[in-house]
Order: sequence, then C-alpha cells, then structure tokens
Amino acid sequence: MKKIIVGQSGGPTAVINSSVAGVYKRAKELGIETIYGMVYGIEGFLNENIIDLDDYLNTDESIELLKRTPSAFLGSCRYKLPKFADAKEVYEKIFSILDKYEIDALFYIGGNDSMDTIKMLSDYAKDNNKKQVFIGIPKTIDNDLPITDHCPGYGSSAKYIATSIKEIIRDNASFGVKKPTICIVEIMGRHAGWLTAAAALSKDDTCEGVDAIYLPEIPFDVDKFIKKVEKLSKEKQSVVIAVSEGIADKDGKFICEYGSEDKKVDAFGHKQLSGCAKTLADLVAAKTGLKTRAIEFSTLQRAATHLASLTDIEEAYNCGAKGVEAAEEGQTGMMVIMERSNSRNYKIDYKLYDIHSIANVEKKVPREWICTKNNTLKDAYLKYVKPLIKGELTPIYKAGLPVHLVRK
Amino acid sequence: MKKIIVGQSGGPTAVINSSVAGVYKRAKELGIETIYGMVYGIEGFLNENIIDLDDYLNTDESIELLKRTPSAFLGSCRYKLPKFADAKEVYEKIFSILDKYEIDALFYIGGNDSMDTIKMLSDYAKDNNKKQVFIGIPKTIDNDLPITDHCPGYGSSAKYIATSIKEIIRDNASFGVKKPTICIVEIMGRHAGWLTAAAALSKDDTCEGVDAIYLPEIPFDVDKFIKKVEKLSKEKQSVVIAVSEGIADKDGKFICEYGSEDKKVDAFGHKQLSGCAKTLADLVAAKTGLKTRAIEFSTLQRAATHLASLTDIEEAYNCGAKGVEAAEEGQTGMMVIMERSNSRNYKIDYKLYDIHSIANVEKKVPREWICTKNNTLKDAYLKYVKPLIKGELTPIYKAGLPVHLVRK
Repeated sequence: MKKIIVGQSGGPTAVINSSVAGVYKRAKELGIETIYGMVYGIEGFLNENIIDLDDYLNTDESIELLKRTPSAFLGSCRYKLPKFADAKEVYEKIFSILDKYEIDALFYIGGNDSMDTIKMLSDYAKDNNKKQVFIGIPKTIDNDLPITDHCPGYGSSAKYIATSIKEIIRDNASFGVKKPTICIVEIMGRHAGWLTAAAALSKDDTCEGVDAIYLPEIPFDVDKFIKKVEKLSKEKQSVVIAVSEGIADKDGKFICEYGSEDKKVDAFGHKQLSGCAKTLADLVAAKTGLKTRAIEFSTLQRAATHLASLTDIEEAYNCGAKGVEAAEEGQTGMMVIMERSNSRNYKIDYKLYDIHSIANVEKKVPREWICTKNNTLKDAYLKYVKPLIKGELTPIYKAGLPVHLVRK
Repeated sequence: MKKIIVGQSGGPTAVINSSVAGVYKRAKELGIETIYGMVYGIEGFLNENIIDLDDYLNTDESIELLKRTPSAFLGSCRYKLPKFADAKEVYEKIFSILDKYEIDALFYIGGNDSMDTIKMLSDYAKDNNKKQVFIGIPKTIDNDLPITDHCPGYGSSAKYIATSIKEIIRDNASFGVKKPTICIVEIMGRHAGWLTAAAALSKDDTCEGVDAIYLPEIPFDVDKFIKKVEKLSKEKQSVVIAVSEGIADKDGKFICEYGSEDKKVDAFGHKQLSGCAKTLADLVAAKTGLKTRAIEFSTLQRAATHLASLTDIEEAYNCGAKGVEAAEEGQTGMMVIMERSNSRNYKIDYKLYDIHSIANVEKKVPREWICTKNNTLKDAYLKYVKPLIKGELTPIYKAGLPVHLVRK
C-alpha cells in the first residue's frame, strides 16, 4: 500500500480521534507514503473533501493533542450508502475518486450504520474486481456492535457517566430535608442500555450509588416506577435514578412520547429521543407532590474527552493500528474486533471479523446481567465494565482550559 | 478560643469543602481544641446535629480528599433565620446550644442568604452581651456577593462551563451539513449573569467560541434572538449559544415562563427557574424549521469537583483560614473578602468586611463589560475572569473513578 484514506462516521465519541491517530501512526511506521483523511465521512469524500494528514499530524505533540480532542477531528456524517441497484452512479463515483487519488485502502471509523458502508463498498469491490480494500474500525458510545467484546468510545462515556453521577449524588444529598428531591438522570442509548448500565459504577466504598436503573431492554412500567419512587422517598434523604432515553412501555411506546407526540426522525429513520427524564420528573411531581429534577447528559457524555478513560484511548488507537496491519495483509470487508482473553488480568487481543456478521446487528445488554427485582445490574456486568474505565490521560491545559487539535 | 463550629449553607459548590479544610487546618495550627461541624447548616444545628471534625479530618490524606469532594461535606440547608421580633425563641435556642458546647466562634460558609444569618446572630450577640463571635466565609457559584473581588466556587464553575462548552462546540461542529444544529446551552444564575458570562472563555486559539451570550442583566428580545439565530444559521456550520436561566423580557417575564406558567417557589421565595434553553430551542424550531438542541448543565456546574480550578480551591481554603484568624483576633459580624491587588501579576489579599454591607446585596455583571451589539463579553470581563480558572487539582482516582470523603 502506498496511499490510504481514513474517515469518521456517525455520532462522535471522546476517543474517535485516537483511532485516527492509530491509523496514521501505524501507517507511517509501515512506510505508507500518503495518509489522507476524508472530511465529513463518505459524504465529504463524494465531494472530494480530502486532506493530507501530514499537514496536521507531523509531530508527536500533534498526535498527543489529537488523542485528547473530542468529537470527530475529520468531521462526520450520517450518510447511508444507497443500495447498488438504486444508485450505481454513487459507487462508480466513489471508485473513480479512489482511483484518481491512487488510494489502496479505505478505513472507516464508526458504528452499526457506518459498518454497512464498509460492507457495501467491499462487496462492490469484490464483485467488480476492484483492487481497493475496506476495513471497519469500531466506534460507538452505545457499545452495541456485535462480536467485539466492547466498542472504543464506550469506556470513556461510562467513566463520564459514573463520575458525573457520583457528583450528582453528592449534590443531591446536600440537604437534610425530610422529603428528598427525586433526581432523574437521562442517559443516551436508543435500544441498548449499555450506557445507562454504567450508572451502576457510581456505587463504591464512598458512594451509595444510584437507587434504580432502567434500561430499554426491559419494558418500563410507569405505575411500578411511581410506586418505587414513593417507597424510596420515605426511606431515603436523596434519590437518584438513571433512565435510558430509549425506555418504552410494554406496547413499545417510548416514555418520552408520553409528553408529546411530535418527535422527529433522522436520516436513518430513527426517532429523535430526548426528554424522558423530564417526562418522568413531571409525572412523579404531579402524582406524588415530591420535588423532582431532570438531568440530561446530552452530548457531553460523548464529548467529554477531559474525562476519557486511558484504557479506552489506547484501545481506540490499537483498533486503528490493527486495521492498517490487516489492510497491509490484503484483508478486506472486515472490522477490527477486540477479544477479551480468559486470563486473570484484563487483556485484549485485536482480531478481524467478517463485516457481514456485524453491519446492522445490534448487541443488547444480556438479560441475565439485569436484575429487574431491584432495578440494578448484576456483578457479571460490573466485572465486564470495570476494566474499561481505568486510567486517565490528563488534558493538555493552557490558561486553565484543555487545548484541542482543530482542522483549519 | 478553645472550641469553634463551622457550617455550610445554600447551594453547594465544587470547592465549598476547601473552606471547611481551611477552617479546620488553621484552627489546628492555632491550637484550638475542638472544631465542630454543624450537619445541615443552622437548621441541623438547631437539632444539635453536630460532629467533631477530628473524627474525619485527622490525617493530611483526609484533608486532601475533602478538598476534592464536591457538594457540602457537612450537609447544607436553605433555612432563613426569622427576625428576632418574630422568633425570640430561635435565637435563645441557638445561644443555649452554643453555651452548652462552649463554642466561642461560629463560621458560616455561604452566599447572600447565609450571610444574613451571620448578620442576625452577630447583631443579637452584641445586643445581648453574648461573647461568641460570628464570621462569614464567602461561597457561591453565582459570584454575586458584593465588596469581595469574586467568590470561591465561581472559578471552578466557570472552568467547568468553559471546558464543557469547548467540548460541545467540537461536538456540534462534527457534521458538515448545510443547515447547522442550533445548540442552546442553559447556565445557572438567577439575576446575575456571572456564570453565563464564563461561556466567553470558550473562545481561544483553537476554538471559535460561542456565537452569542445572553445575560439576565440585559432585557431579552425574542424577535431579535430569532433573527440573530437565522443569520448565524446562514453563515455557519455550527451554532452554539449560551443563555442564563434567568433571562427575562423587557416586562420582566422570564423566558422559561413562555413555555408554562406553573413555576414553583423555594423557601426564600425565589422562583425555580429551568427550561429556558428548551423553550427557546422549541421556539426557534417552530419559527425557522432549524434543527435545535437544548443542553442544561444543571447541578453538574456546581458539583464537578473533578474539573475544579486549583486557584479556586486554594482561595476557598484561604478564606476559611482567614476567618479563623479574624475570630481569634475577636472580630465578629464580618465576612472574609478577597481584594485583588493592582500588581501586574494576579494576587489576592484576604481582608474582613462588615457583614451589614454584604448580606442580601446582589452584585451583577457591570453593564460596561457587556457588549449588547454582538451579544458577547468585553475584554475587561475576560481579564477579570481568566486568573480564576487557572490550575488543576487532579482527583484521587480509584479503579478509574474519583474518590470522595463522605460523612458516615
């Protein structure tokens, strides 16, 4: 390989740029001549919005800064590649640009929808005798990609969520009032409760932890919820509850829709969810008279690089590096996966896996890890997640604020 | 002095515990025998909810941990001391408890309302020949206490706000879409815009900063706001705007009330404000068809000790220590203030000031620091605020999460 290109796609994470750093650094080590970046993913690529990463990453300092920069350094997109039968011209255009720039390999850092792009492009290349190879690098705070033990991005979001909830619990416990404020924290994750599950990490030697956790994997019962809150309000001076944005009742109706019906739909046809904490807080206040507070972590839970997990940053980097090695070996239509070894100490092996088994498949929190009786997560989940949040990579501060690497 | 007591009152901050550490450590250095803590402020004190701080702070490690613990370690209250004429018995009870425990000095760490308590108690003591002294230690993220250059708690909140907004700006700029998402960030501060002003810190060498800042000091014009947003949406790929929870129109109607009319009132008669970002986001979406997102920092902006300013932590500590020195000198009815010296480098002198000039007075952002033309803050504000966010005190991490000191 002489020339390669890397792109980022879908919702950003705190460590998505570490994977770019891994691709760039390993490619340099392997003597690859040019490492391009596509600006705004495959959508930008179609407009030949392409940069040479040497213009930004030519020093070790800039790579260190990139690893500490939130969101997609290259820019992202939510562009769904149309089916070949529907849009032959899109595929021809992509390959004509690849040929024009003499690009041998394309790396796409993303989640479920982005892996679909890798699948379609590698299939097209095989069917049409194109020489380019296509490798997916996993990325999603949602942690819902199958096969891989977990996804880069998840550990840092989990660390942000657990740290912030520990701080919220301390705050909510400040006042020695007889009736506690019911604090309901809303966490991202459309259909999979991985991020919300991370609220369980808030319980440790010095913190009582959250009082209940509600994942989208389990149908949500509003009446039971109200009863649980009333019971907690009589027993405790502070009540903090974590709910997924995606919780729905047994008929599949999202709880956030109890408030209003006019939710919008994004380019992939997903409903835009938000506001279920507010809906529940209003409901609790109306039904019980208790004081309530709704907190949404919103985009902070995917952008808070200042609180990233070092383990996560390193793994994101390694996934990028492994992708380059795989392409150099001639592999294509594969995603890098992380396999947890059975050894006593946490250890990850980086492998490749057929993209057809991954694209568009969602991995949910295993039912046996969820305790529905106490609305909490079992030890099996804690054992799984704890290694992922370990370690810190201190931001580079200037005048009291973290510095980032930004495209001109 | 042989025995003293310290309490915390009002909304917690990221560094309110540093002032407890300062009181405790300086008292120990001065040979004071017993340092009590009142649990849940003066309200808890009235129930004799009193602890001996030696039980918690007997090692340097525990003091370091206390400095890194968010929210009020001792517990807080929002108890307004009634007027003497209305409730003689409350005063008699307070002094009987002080006598019973042989307490010579009472330190109260708090904001406007809490300083009123110090004023009432020191006045009562003078009028009734009581020997106890009463000293106020400033604390408020709102930065609205008069006389003092600034308030402990403000610098850390400003640092959290600026850091988080920098991350939100990166996140919001991810997508190269033609129509940007309009992101509206709501920041605390009822009548004073100090916290919202801190959004101006997000602009630096590598960050474009927020596109507009709206403080409660300036009447908010909804039509002008919509026009500004429409203009920005045509010029930019990402728009991020900071608004104070307390913005109101020229008739004094809060913008958050445009949404609903049923706002509750707290023990001090303040309206509970929240939701103006959501109100504005809904309004912009309805009037312009633009995609919008509302983000509320909620209690995180006062609880995020993991991102505290070292300058702020040290100043909060010094204010506590200065209070003890003042009491030892026999002063009473005073609050510790910080005076910025006119030297080239930032330097604070700690002094005492008559509580009667401070209690119940609100300091707003000076009109001449606000640029209403561009909806931003002028350099005079930036010069004022920049020293306050400098430096970091890394949390003590265990298994990837910050550890706190918590009462049993």
